[in-house]
Amino acid sequence: MAKNIDKLNASFMSKRKANHVPLSPLSFLRRTFNLYPDEVSIIYGDRKFNWRETYERCVKLASSLKQHGLQKGEVVTVIAANTPEMFECQFAIAMAGGVLNTVNIRLDAETIAHIFEHAEPRILIADTGFSDVILKAKSQSNYKDFEIINIIDEQDKMSSTASPIGKYNYEQMVEQGDSEFNWQLPDDEWDAICLNYTSGTGGLPKGVVYHHRGAYLMAMGTVPAWQMQMHPTYLYTVPMFHCNGWGHAWMMSLIAGKVICTRQLTAEAIFGLIETHKVTHFGGAPIILGMLVNAHKEIQFKPSWPVQAMTAGAPPPASILQKIEELGYTVMQVYGLTETYGHVVQCVWQDKWNKLDFAERAARKAQQGVQFTHTEFVDVIERETNRPVPADGQTIGEIVIRSNTIMKGYHKNEIDTEKSLSDGFFRSGDLAVRHQSGYLEIKDRLKDIIISGGENISSVEVENVLYRHENVAFAAVVAKKDEKWGETPCAFVEMKPNASATEEEIISFCRKHLAGFKAPKSVIFGEIPKTSTGKIQKYILRQSLVSSN
Amino acid sequence: MAKNIDKLNASFMSKRKANHVPLSPLSFLRRTFNLYPDEVSIIYGDRKFNWRETYERCVKLASSLKQHGLQKGEVVTVIAANTPEMFECQFAIAMAGGVLNTVNIRLDAETIAHIFEHAEPRILIADTGFSDVILKAKSQSNYKDFEIINIIDEQDKMSSTASPIGKYNYEQMVEQGDSEFNWQLPDDEWDAICLNYTSGTGGLPKGVVYHHRGAYLMAMGTVPAWQMQMHPTYLYTVPMFHCNGWGHAWMMSLIAGKVICTRQLTAEAIFGLIETHKVTHFGGAPIILGMLVNAHKEIQFKPSWPVQAMTAGAPPPASILQKIEELGYTVMQVYGLTETYGHVVQCVWQDKWNKLDFAERAARKAQQGVQFTHTEFVDVIERETNRPVPADGQTIGEIVIRSNTIMKGYHKNEIDTEKSLSDGFFRSGDLAVRHQSGYLEIKDRLKDIIISGGENISSVEVENVLYRHENVAFAAVVAKKDEKWGETPCAFVEMKPNASATEEEIISFCRKHLAGFKAPKSVIFGEIPKTSTGKIQKYILRQSLVSSN
Repeated sequence: MAKNIDKLNASFMSKRKANHVPLSPLSFLRRTFNLYPDEVSIIYGDRKFNWRETYERCVKLASSLKQHGLQKGEVVTVIAANTPEMFECQFAIAMAGGVLNTVNIRLDAETIAHIFEHAEPRILIADTGFSDVILKAKSQSNYKDFEIINIIDEQDKMSSTASPIGKYNYEQMVEQGDSEFNWQLPDDEWDAICLNYTSGTGGLPKGVVYHHRGAYLMAMGTVPAWQMQMHPTYLYTVPMFHCNGWGHAWMMSLIAGKVICTRQLTAEAIFGLIETHKVTHFGGAPIILGMLVNAHKEIQFKPSWPVQAMTAGAPPPASILQKIEELGYTVMQVYGLTETYGHVVQCVWQDKWNKLDFAERAARKAQQGVQFTHTEFVDVIERETNRPVPADGQTIGEIVIRSNTIMKGYHKNEIDTEKSLSDGFFRSGDLAVRHQSGYLEIKDRLKDIIISGGENISSVEVENVLYRHENVAFAAVVAKKDEKWGETPCAFVEMKPNASATEEEIISFCRKHLAGFKAPKSVIFGEIPKTSTGKIQKYILRQSLVSSN
Repeated sequence: MAKNIDKLNASFMSKRKANHVPLSPLSFLRRTFNLYPDEVSIIYGDRKFNWRETYERCVKLASSLKQHGLQKGEVVTVIAANTPEMFECQFAIAMAGGVLNTVNIRLDAETIAHIFEHAEPRILIADTGFSDVILKAKSQSNYKDFEIINIIDEQDKMSSTASPIGKYNYEQMVEQGDSEFNWQLPDDEWDAICLNYTSGTGGLPKGVVYHHRGAYLMAMGTVPAWQMQMHPTYLYTVPMFHCNGWGHAWMMSLIAGKVICTRQLTAEAIFGLIETHKVTHFGGAPIILGMLVNAHKEIQFKPSWPVQAMTAGAPPPASILQKIEELGYTVMQVYGLTETYGHVVQCVWQDKWNKLDFAERAARKAQQGVQFTHTEFVDVIERETNRPVPADGQTIGEIVIRSNTIMKGYHKNEIDTEKSLSDGFFRSGDLAVRHQSGYLEIKDRLKDIIISGGENISSVEVENVLYRHENVAFAAVVAKKDEKWGETPCAFVEMKPNASATEEEIISFCRKHLAGFKAPKSVIFGEIPKTSTGKIQKYILRQSLVSSN
């Protein structure tokens, strides 16, 4: 039979320019420029732009980059804070056909040197505030074949007083650009748009390659899932060097939002900006939320309008979630990785849960949840068989994801690409359980699980108990080699200012709330090392245990 | 240079199952089933479903269609009213790999026979309420090679009392289906999902082929543009046989809306359903809005909550827009064609326009507007040169559109496909001007423009004046052959009940508000023929002029 299939696929029905346009977030920017040229796009201190200006600045920068010889597919590395320039780079580099490579501004010179060698940028756009580490990195790098364009931030003391290290100036590049430059969408929506190095909770960062299609769908999918309306006011506390600031720059161009930029990530600055600009949305790692709830009462701002906060990067302790909501902020926890363009799982709140008692509600809030709009498939599987674990809230397996927002692969790293993508889904390396509701809950990174006497111990579970101790500010639990048990849990604890506890007190507190074998056998007090995005660097803790052995 | 481009496009970076999933609205339904199984999906009279039930019914119907031998790419024609079954067909047929072909329920047997012959369906799903015309069409059609599955609507007198003409019963098909049926997304997002015949304001309908990608993007793009939130209550007054009900069924599955179905399109029924179900959104041709504003005051319902109405199909007269807003409904005018999956242009209201005086505001409301989120490009061009017309609000050109929501082409019609798609955009055949604001405003269908003494006369412009006459219910202006002028405008006027006017009165009314050469030279009174979606059938009026000559 199948009468019509050949006719419905006749060659004159194939893709054409009229009906098949590569998906790219650049289309959003163009549309918002057309529709809302006079609406405010960016506010940063005393600088203010509208969407006409932002669009035209992007076009002019793109034209200048082209004039400077940037070829299609070449990498432009950007080392900058969350300023308007950094926002513009999320579009302008792709408009010029380049691939945006943002770098964590808190990395050491050695790691930046590694990124230079690995990414081979043609151009480096750098805020002068970071000149020292960049010069050091460049001197250490075997690859130096890039020109430097300096961003000078007159509103920032460090940036405005440093000597420029670049041959070119960002603002001049914009001014000299051609506002009529005929930029093009990518030939193929699968073309690379970004090269993002993993934030590296362990080892050398890997180069994650994003495509235009994924960037477009990430922005589109977040709108219904985060219940966005047109023209929100978004405070950019998430670093734009991290998964392109969770793709929110692209989404803001889609819904013509007002973006508030800031370099200051103190509680005072954040509360002040929320109040001044009537911010409706912001994002931040749990460490940011923790900072807000632990701030002095006098500087805490309780908004009289709804403010939505998206949090990710690590499971936020239930106590922080509770306190931030008491302050009047609604939190949506999401989960994702650099490899997934950021968020792909979200803790969708179900109205029927409002009836549950407090402990039950807190337990739901702490779950990572279910698939985002753009996520096609997420599951928790047994690592040996690739079969789903039972939805019993108990059996631990690996989170796997299938989505149009999964990276193309790891740059110049076929082996790790195959390892993570070849089974029909992306292997996250994160361990979780699935609840009967279908919601998943992270139990650990694969490499962070502790196996003691043959029993799995989730370091996250132990940490959650530690966070319930009134004097604990931060906690991390890692495996310590043990002759008898193989491994035992070792707790690293950072106390709140002027607070203290003994090892025995901490261990007995844990024993009260945990099975005995899960309680830490040893406790080490001191400051806990964290990445700039607030992730605790367990590999440093682990190394410290090895070297002290 | 171009150092990285080859590496960023290395073969291990190509598309895989993990990171490239065909875009399809079927993914929305699956996700909503996973996330919101207990939320209400459809209410139709005393029938009520939740998303678990809707999903499972779709899966079971799909499995039954497969069991009945439906092959991938085969057409399933559906002739049904806006009942839950019609909603399910928007998903189930694609789940079975089939291509959905909905048919306008008000077509004559001859046209339906033409569609049977042209679409060659493998299966016909038909509401028994339309058995008479279907039997007649089948007897006239040279193609009869399809099985009939009957929908019996117990809540509808015509449907429930008619004799079934099919071998199978829809409800039994659902019941006998396998709820574990492992349906698949399409192999390719470019695969056909629907075959929609143009509603035919002139000549034989053409078969417009939609792909999964376009259906997905249509739903995604409408969410920010219509400012949708999760879980709206949507009254399905737009026939689902018309551009798949403007793609709103797919969008409802994306945002887990509550869909209110109805066969009744009276003002009383619509107001009643809005009140009973606290409807937040509905859509309808201007004729529906006209019916609501012209209804008796006693049955008009003024909602105390925001209700959004999307209108399209013809430029709504300003007076109707004003009156419906006075009733408490917010209208967004959109523009599109069957070939564009429905809406691709929207009249985005700009806050600064609130300051304009009434006439200016009405003039803005009457414009069709600017591109939707999913629309990549829309312009008004000079037909001879393909160059954009000046944005002067005066120069008439053809609307052209580039979008991922443009049809694959016309089924079995390579010539018309090439004509409309081969210039890098879709030629709409609609004539418009572009205002300085960038907003476009429709002046006419290409074939409806009147050329009198070498001057272009927009029939829409003349009609707008006629609608301002207090006694005119409907008006249509077409070209009449004239020895001296070539063509002159001839007005067809349908008066309001119990109202009357003379030809001289109408002409002199027009002369007061129009340049003399634009005023009609003759006026014909009587009922004006309209399609089921409220479009005035000018070709019939034109034919009547020819035959009376």
